[in-house]
Order: sequence, then C-alpha cells, then structure tokens
Amino acid sequence: MHAANIEQNPETRIYSLIEPYDAYAEAFCAAYPGVKRQTVEEAMADDNVHAVCICSSTDTHADLIERAAKAGKAIFCEKPIDLDAARVRDCLAVVNQHQVPFLIGFNRRFDPHFSALKSALERGDLGEITSVIITSRDPAPPPAQYSKSSGGMFRDMTIHDLDMARFLVGEEPIAVTAHGSCKVDPAIGEAGDIDTSVVVLTFASGAMATIHNSRRSGYGYDQRIEVHGEKGMLQVGNITENALVSSTQHGQQLATPKYFFLERYEQAFAAEWLHFVEVLNGAKPSCSGDDGERALALADAAILSMQLARR
Amino acid sequence: MHAANIEQNPETRIYSLIEPYDAYAEAFCAAYPGVKRQTVEEAMADDNVHAVCICSSTDTHADLIERAAKAGKAIFCEKPIDLDAARVRDCLAVVNQHQVPFLIGFNRRFDPHFSALKSALERGDLGEITSVIITSRDPAPPPAQYSKSSGGMFRDMTIHDLDMARFLVGEEPIAVTAHGSCKVDPAIGEAGDIDTSVVVLTFASGAMATIHNSRRSGYGYDQRIEVHGEKGMLQVGNITENALVSSTQHGQQLATPKYFFLERYEQAFAAEWLHFVEVLNGAKPSCSGDDGERALALADAAILSMQLARR
Amino acid sequence: MHAANIEQNPETRIYSLIEPYDAYAEAFCAAYPGVKRQTVEEAMADDNVHAVCICSSTDTHADLIERAAKAGKAIFCEKPIDLDAARVRDCLAVVNQHQVPFLIGFNRRFDPHFSALKSALERGDLGEITSVIITSRDPAPPPAQYSKSSGGMFRDMTIHDLDMARFLVGEEPIAVTAHGSCKVDPAIGEAGDIDTSVVVLTFASGAMATIHNSRRSGYGYDQRIEVHGEKGMLQVGNITENALVSSTQHGQQLATPKYFFLERYEQAFAAEWLHFVEVLNGAKPSCSGDDGERALALADAAILSMQLARR
Amino acid sequence: MHAANIEQNPETRIYSLIEPYDAYAEAFCAAYPGVKRQTVEEAMADDNVHAVCICSSTDTHADLIERAAKAGKAIFCEKPIDLDAARVRDCLAVVNQHQVPFLIGFNRRFDPHFSALKSALERGDLGEITSVIITSRDPAPPPAQYSKSSGGMFRDMTIHDLDMARFLVGEEPIAVTAHGSCKVDPAIGEAGDIDTSVVVLTFASGAMATIHNSRRSGYGYDQRIEVHGEKGMLQVGNITENALVSSTQHGQQLATPKYFFLERYEQAFAAEWLHFVEVLNGAKPSCSGDDGERALALADAAILSMQLARR
Repeated sequence: MHAANIEQNPETRIYSLIEPYDAYAEAFCAAYPGVKRQTVEEAMADDNVHAVCICSSTDTHADLIERAAKAGKAIFCEKPIDLDAARVRDCLAVVNQHQVPFLIGFNRRFDPHFSALKSALERGDLGEITSVIITSRDPAPPPAQYSKSSGGMFRDMTIHDLDMARFLVGEEPIAVTAHGSCKVDPAIGEAGDIDTSVVVLTFASGAMATIHNSRRSGYGYDQRIEVHGEKGMLQVGNITENALVSSTQHGQQLATPKYFFLERYEQAFAAEWLHFVEVLNGAKPSCSGDDGERALALADAAILSMQLARR
Repeated sequence: MHAANIEQNPETRIYSLIEPYDAYAEAFCAAYPGVKRQTVEEAMADDNVHAVCICSSTDTHADLIERAAKAGKAIFCEKPIDLDAARVRDCLAVVNQHQVPFLIGFNRRFDPHFSALKSALERGDLGEITSVIITSRDPAPPPAQYSKSSGGMFRDMTIHDLDMARFLVGEEPIAVTAHGSCKVDPAIGEAGDIDTSVVVLTFASGAMATIHNSRRSGYGYDQRIEVHGEKGMLQVGNITENALVSSTQHGQQLATPKYFFLERYEQAFAAEWLHFVEVLNGAKPSCSGDDGERALALADAAILSMQLARR
Repeated sequence: MHAANIEQNPETRIYSLIEPYDAYAEAFCAAYPGVKRQTVEEAMADDNVHAVCICSSTDTHADLIERAAKAGKAIFCEKPIDLDAARVRDCLAVVNQHQVPFLIGFNRRFDPHFSALKSALERGDLGEITSVIITSRDPAPPPAQYSKSSGGMFRDMTIHDLDMARFLVGEEPIAVTAHGSCKVDPAIGEAGDIDTSVVVLTFASGAMATIHNSRRSGYGYDQRIEVHGEKGMLQVGNITENALVSSTQHGQQLATPKYFFLERYEQAFAAEWLHFVEVLNGAKPSCSGDDGERALALADAAILSMQLARR
Repeated sequence: MHAANIEQNPETRIYSLIEPYDAYAEAFCAAYPGVKRQTVEEAMADDNVHAVCICSSTDTHADLIERAAKAGKAIFCEKPIDLDAARVRDCLAVVNQHQVPFLIGFNRRFDPHFSALKSALERGDLGEITSVIITSRDPAPPPAQYSKSSGGMFRDMTIHDLDMARFLVGEEPIAVTAHGSCKVDPAIGEAGDIDTSVVVLTFASGAMATIHNSRRSGYGYDQRIEVHGEKGMLQVGNITENALVSSTQHGQQLATPKYFFLERYEQAFAAEWLHFVEVLNGAKPSCSGDDGERALALADAAILSMQLARR
C-alpha cells in the first residue's frame, strides 16, 4: 500500500527495497520493475536514497530510525517507534540531533472524515470541548501469540485512539484510568493480554476522553468518534461497504462497515504520504516523534492503571 | 379511533351512536358509557347533536352529509364524499346552501411530519417548487372484492396522494398521466382494478408531481414525500416501529416502518379532530368539500388516462 | 401526565388528590371533575383508596411510602425513594413487612425502544454481553440551586443510567469508577456539584458499562444506548421531533431529538402505568424497591470514587 | 481520469495521444512522459496501438469508431455513439462487420453501489421486479449553449438513466411517456431544451420505471435508485462528501452528496476500465453497442412523447 502511494505521487519514486525474505523481495521487484534490492548498509550509504519508509516489524523500528537519522535521510516510520519508553526517548534524541524530517504514521489523523471533524473543531463549531468518545473495535481478534509481540492491546491498538484523543482535545491528559478484561478469546487472556477495554483520560480543563476498544466487533471494523462541546456534538460514524439498503418484512438492512483497516483507511494512508512529501519539502510534520512518545506514555499509564485496580 | 379523539378533546363528547349492527353498537356503548344509540332521523332531530362524525361505508356518505347539512349540523366526513363526481357536486351544493361547517378527512394533511414539510414550504425554505414525489405503498393488498366497492385504487388510495400533491404544490394540476398494472394479486386484475401505478401531474408553472403507489410494499406501510425546489430538497421518510439498530456480520438492521395506517397516522387523526374543533369554533376548514371534489376529479382523470393508453 | 395515564386506563381512576398548594389543587380538580381533595391522613384511612401514586418532592417519598405501606395501599413511587441509603433501607423494610405491591418509577425501563433492546438481549441476539454504553445528556442545565436539593448529578440523573446498566447487563457491578467536572455552568460547581461525567461499572463477568452524562447537550434530550456482545451490537438512537430532512447546499439537515423528557418518554410513562396496573392485579413488579436501593448505592459509590480521585 | 486508470492497470499503457490542441497535448505528455502524439491516421496505421479510448466530443465518436473498427483496434467509447439514431445504426454495422471488441461507457453500470444492487436483484432478493425509480439530478445547470450541442437533456443526461432502467429491469420497455419543463434556467428553455423532467417507462411484464431528472439539485450530485419487487425494496442513496454529523440546536447536519460526477463515479470509471481490459482479453462486453443504440432510441421516444403532449 505504501508502495502504491509512493509511486502515485509525482514527487516520489521507490528507489530500492530492503527486505530479508527473498520470495517477497522478488515478488515486489517484479511488480515494481526498476526497483533495486539493497541491504541497510548499502541504502544508508547511497546518496540516491533521500528518504526511508520504515514499515518493518516493530522491534526493528528504533534501530532503523537511528541509522537513517545518522545517514541524514528523511524518515517516515509506522507507529510505534518502540514498545519501550526509554528506547523511544533515546531514539528520538538521535533524530533530534541530526535534524532530519521525521513523520510517525498515526494514519487516522489523515483520514478525510476525521480531518473534517478536526477542521470543524478548529473552526470553533463546538466552542470549548467537554468530552470525546472514541470507539475502535477490530472486526475479529488476532492470533493470541500476536498479543505478546505487539506489546499488548493498549500499546498496539489503543495507542491510535490515545493519539486521536490528544489530537482532538488539543491538550495533554493529566490522568488515565483503564479497565480491561478478556471477553473475546481466552487464549489472549492466557497470553497476559486483554481484548475488551474502556480507558478514560481526564484533562486539566475538566474535559474527558473515553476510549472503547474491543478485539471483536462482530460486524466489521468499527471506527467512530464523537466530540461534545458547548454548542453541541460532532460525530463521525462508520463507512459502510456500499450504500445499498434493503427493506423487507424483516426490517431495513444496511451494509456492514468496511471490514479491513487497509480498506477503511485507504484514503488516510494516501493522505499521510502526501503529507510526508510536504514534510520532505520543508513542512512541519503534523505528527511528530513527540506525538509517538506521548501516546506510548499514555498506553503505559493505562496498563499501570489496570494493574493497580486488579490488585 | 375517532371516538377516542372525540372523548380526549375537552370541548367534544360523544352524545349518540348511529350504528346498524347491534353487536358493534353494544360493544361501543359498553366502552363509552352514557352514549345513547339513535337512528339517523332521531339524531338529525336532536338539538343536543351539534356535529356529526361520518365514518360509515363510502356509499352512505353523500346522503348522510346532505341530511346533516339540512339539519344544520357541523360535519366531519371521512374521504371520499362519493365515488361519483356528479353526486359529489350535488352533495356539496347542499352543504354550501346550508352553510354548515364541513371538514373532509384527508388525514395526512394533519400528520405532524407532513405538516412540518408544508410549513417549511410556506416559509420559503425551497423557494419555488419544481417537483413533488409521493410514495404511498400499502403493506399488503386488500381482498380483491374490496377493489370493486372501493371504486378502484385511484379513487380509494391514490386520492390521498392527489390531495397531498395539490396541498403541497399549492396550484391546480393541468394534466394527469397515469400508468397502472396488476403485479401484486391477479385477482385484483380480474376484478378490473390495478395494484401498482405511477401517476404524473403537471402544473401550469411547469412543476410536476409523481405519485408511486402499490398495494404491497413487502416491508410495512411506506409513506414518503420528497419535494424539490430552487434551493434544494425536503423529504419526509418512514416512521419505524422502534429505534433499535442491530449490527451483526449480516449488516446493520433497522426496524420496519409502522405497518398499519392507524398506527402510522395516529397523531394525524388526533390533529385532524383538533382542527375540526377549531372549525366548530369558527375557523375556516383547511380541507374543504372542494378539496374532496378536486381530488376525485384527478382520480377520475387518472383512470381515463390509463384507459386511453391501453387502447 | 400520570393523571392522564391513570384516567386513560380502563382499570384505574383518580379518586383523590393530596396537594398542599391550593391553586394547583384547584386547577387539577377543575381538569378532573369528581376528584376530591384529601389530606394524607384522610387518604390513608379511606378504603376507597386502593393505590397511591407518589410524585411529590423527593424528601417526602420515604415517609409517604411508609404510611401507605402501613395502610395497606399499593404504591407507585417516582425515583428516588430517598437520597440517603440508610433511610431507603428502613423504608423498604416497612414495605416488605406489609407486603404491599410496590413499583419504583424507573420510567426508561418501560420505553418501547429500550424494551425492544432488552427483548433482543433476552432473545440472545447478541450472545454474551461484553459492554454497554449509555449516553444521557439533558438539553440544558437546571438552576444551580437544584443541584443541592437533588442530591447531586449522580443521585439525580445518573441514577437512571445506573439502573439501566444493571437492567441490561443482568448482573450486579463489582466496581464503580467515576470522573466528573464542571464544564457547563460554574454556579453548579460552586454549589458543589458536577455537570459533566463519565462513570464506568465493571462486572464479575468482565463486562463493562460506561455512562456518559452531561447537563447540556446543546441539541435536545440525548438518550442513547449501545450494547456489544459476542455477535455484534444493538443500538437505540435518539427520537427526533419529526422526520423532515432538508437538503441544501449546506448539507442534509435532520430535526433535533425531542427536547423535553416528558415528550421523549411519553410512551414510557404510559407503559409504566400499564405495568403498575398489572402489579395491582398480582404481577411481580419489574422494577422493585431493591432496584431503587441498588441504583442509589451505585450513585453513592460513584460520588466516593470521584472524591477519592480528587484528593 | 481515463489516463490514470489506464496507467494504473498492469495490463494497459498509454502509447499515444490524439489531441488537436497543442497546449493540452503538451501538458498531457508532460504528465505522462513517454507518450507520443499521433494523428488519427498514424495511430490507425500503428501496430503498437491495440485499443483506442475515445473520449473526444460527441460529434467525432461515430467516425472514430468506424476508423478504429476498420483498423482492427479494440474500442472503448464514451456514450453516446452519436445523437442521430441512423448514424448510430450505420456505425454499429461497421463495428459488427469487423468484429472488434467494443465497450460503450455507461459508467454507472460499473459503480460498486449500483453493482451491489444489480447483484442483489440477480440473486433474487426482491423476487419479480415491479418498479424502478431513478433520481438523477445535476448539482447545477450547464451553460445554455451546451443544451444544443448535447442533443438536449434526454439524449445527454437521461440516456444514462434509460440505460440503467433497462439494465436493472432486464427487459425492454414497450412505452415511454415523458414530461419536461424549464424550471431552472430560462436560457435553457430559449435554447429549446428542458431542465426538469419525469419519464415513465412501461414494460410488457407490467413493471414500470420512473426517471426523475433535473439540471439543478441545489445540494450536490443527486444519484439515487430504488427498486421494488415482490419481497420489498432495494435502495442506493447518495454518497456524501464525508461522514461528519453535526448536532446543534438547529438539528442534525450531514454532509452534502459528492458534488462532481467525476468524484461520485471515480470508482465506477476505474471498474469500467477494468472491465474493458477483460473485454480485451476476450470477455463479452457487459455494455454493448446495442445498449448504446437502445438507450438513444428511448431518449428519442421521450422527446417525441413530450412533443406530442405539448401540441
């Protein structure tokens, strides 16, 4: 998906691929003729590489970011930077030291629906924000073993919503309270993780943000946001597979929400790359390393809150 | 239903019942203690009867209206006045001669949703009206023998929509084109009637009104109106049984529209009686004998148009 | 409103009114001719009084309940029984001792939309419940002085939602976490109350219920419920003033939710009285004194949680 | 737009451009480096040209189709083939004689929403079709002079809906009745055209299709379809700019429908080209020259019907 977005942009081209698996690398290069395969070392030393798009496994992110920063490359990196807060801090220090353009991939900020919501808030449509309610439910749970490697639901999934809450409220939370349980797949519980949760953030202004997560909606990828303020409410509902409505003796039936995150956020990923190109051209990244660090800190706080409540 | 509305109004009480069938009359009087049973002659001669509510079978309407008018009673009568245009004309002449308050029961004009639509039009929300689209579909077809006694679908069912079109556009149609077929119950066709139709009215201003009717929706009582004008569109959709929405892997499911006309138009019937009380108190009836006559004339024109097309 | 429902029911009639204010009592008796005015003593001693409908100010409830119970009258009482948990316990002991029919007025349980939701849950449409999200926002804040007498937002307003959460989940909460702030009217804060809150209930099964409250929605009376389970989600949305939709260059505009609680819950109050008549006829009350006591205990727990977090 | 779809498809590439205007041709070749500019003669004689995509002005279509057919090229052509029925017949005779793959661009057949509707009909979701209602309203009227060159609203705009009616009902109409007026721009009327219309098609089965058109909706590009059958109704509503809903004291506000046809039918145009590639690979075109001819014949019949009614 990133590859398609890179190629479609008139200002960016895929120059080389760093990929340990031969089969995948060959398939990729067949689809994108002219793309060469490089090692990390080769790419970092190659002056034709102006920017890197890091979408490898999470445990490689921080190392690759540091190497790219040291080589003076502009960096786009999928979230999270790392699962460990200290490692994130050190990594961002390297980025700051080398002053390279850096964009972290909180793709939802770039979704046109959520962008319209953010614009309406900035325009003052609601006046002062009093509360935010974010619903984010996966269509179906991942394999239980994923829980471990992902750092747990709060660090893997809720982190998007924690970032969104900060983004929308425009203020840093002063407290995090989290409740979680295992209601979807017992194997996830056995792996030490949760699959159902409510997280409440409170802000110094008295505003509150509530995040509802589940690893299983049962009806598609459920991505909704509701913001309340002085003048009323703004909502973004789900985007359905199609606009067909069927009315029979059983009722009125609408399509399910788009099922897969790549499908739901297709436009967001495209807009994200567009913004990265702006960053390459000197714009300030709308989603910085600091945002990545803060969202991880909130996820860590949520884990702590849940652990304290269980004692 | 009329009885309940009469009793609920602080200004009206049921004084007597004219009802040929003993069993029904007894049940009614048991439910409304104190109501006496009268013959038509007795009621017309009784000074305690100030107004009559005619909701008997269609073929008795014109005669009862004339007798009530001659006796100086205020009259509420269910549509239609009669199925024969000449008979309607004669009947209304009697009403006019005796100058009694007269309200014809085009109940939909009093529906709060359609009233809100009419108010918006009068307020100029749309500017000049360019077209009206009325959808009116019964949940399930009546017995085929009803077709005969009812005067056919256009005179029985479409007549409501023809009145609504005149009411909304605020102008008399200059032409009627009708298309009908029998797609629901062959027995209706054998009885010489239709069960599916499209009627187009054109107006001198160039505005058009289209009426979509069917004796079977398959999903409840389908009552929708759409009006287009210079500035956009106004729509009234269906009123569902309840507000429950179910989202599963099969999609999002909403309740069916209210199934029965008494349920859908419960508020309309209550508002209609309220208006009749205003008429008793001297107000101009918002829905006159003339309106009844004109709607029938349009239904007759629709029948003629369909017959001509079939030759 | 209760008076109208009592009179409309074929099995109940208003016999007498207990009302300290002459002006109100006279207006009432004018509207309901034949209703006599009594003191509490007279009514308790009158064998013609079979049941009492207590809708006086909150601080009189417990006393009136006890006197009616001792006199052997069936009791319908508006929530809450009292603002003090100990007082409620004592009062209910008296009710239990005298074994009189007792229904507490959590009117929302009787709303046809929420009833349809409850029926769907009982039918197993969702399988096991994983979470409940209740939104309850008043259209506009009450006077600040009301905060004091009402016992605070949690005991006055949230108590309905706490009852609804228990009703829907069908299980007792094991923990309550509450967050509140004053975002609507500073005078409410000065009176020691809050106007904006999030309350999370957790259940032994791992299910969670979240309640979003505000004293001001800005767009009408906002009453929504969302339930998630194994098989998907059930939602009840707002009921709008009318079904008119206006489409212009500015977008598609729908009516606001019904503004006033008597209007929104008109059908619920009627159904509630219908159920009380069933209780008079021997049915088990679907909403008992115990339910009133438990909801208050949860409100008290919410207050405690909020106070602890603020230290 | 076609260029982007051609380039995105792994099986097709733009080889050359035939374009009389230098400025446009140069801009195009700058955006698509490697594309050469050719005359019609050069392209027809060039064996590297396997297929042509004709999206020039309407009056050039028939001639270009014939030349491409004679040169053995596969042909994609935007609707209409020509505004004159006899010219269309002759042109299609040439196509048939040379047996080249030929796809006519009724793009709406390829829209995913309407495709889902068509699939549901083929699956028998509705049983036998009784009626189809198509709404197609442009956001704002074109310049009046466009009316002339476009062949009038029925041949230019309604033709899409006439094709859709045939496509959905799966049967040829036996009669066309049309009503049109000039309600939007008097200059359109002065140019001899209409801007507001209702067209009714009747089918031998008794099914009916109604097409509502306007050159101005006032609220965006209004593209809706409703199909009724034995078992109920299927609807496709409008696709809005975004999913934001704003609730204030003025009501609930949703976004307008997508405004521009290229935006609304972006996915349709992409799917159309995908199908053309299937046609290149031997598939039967789902939208043939015959479909183009029949839609034009219906548009001509609509014009005749309207003229007859005006005498």
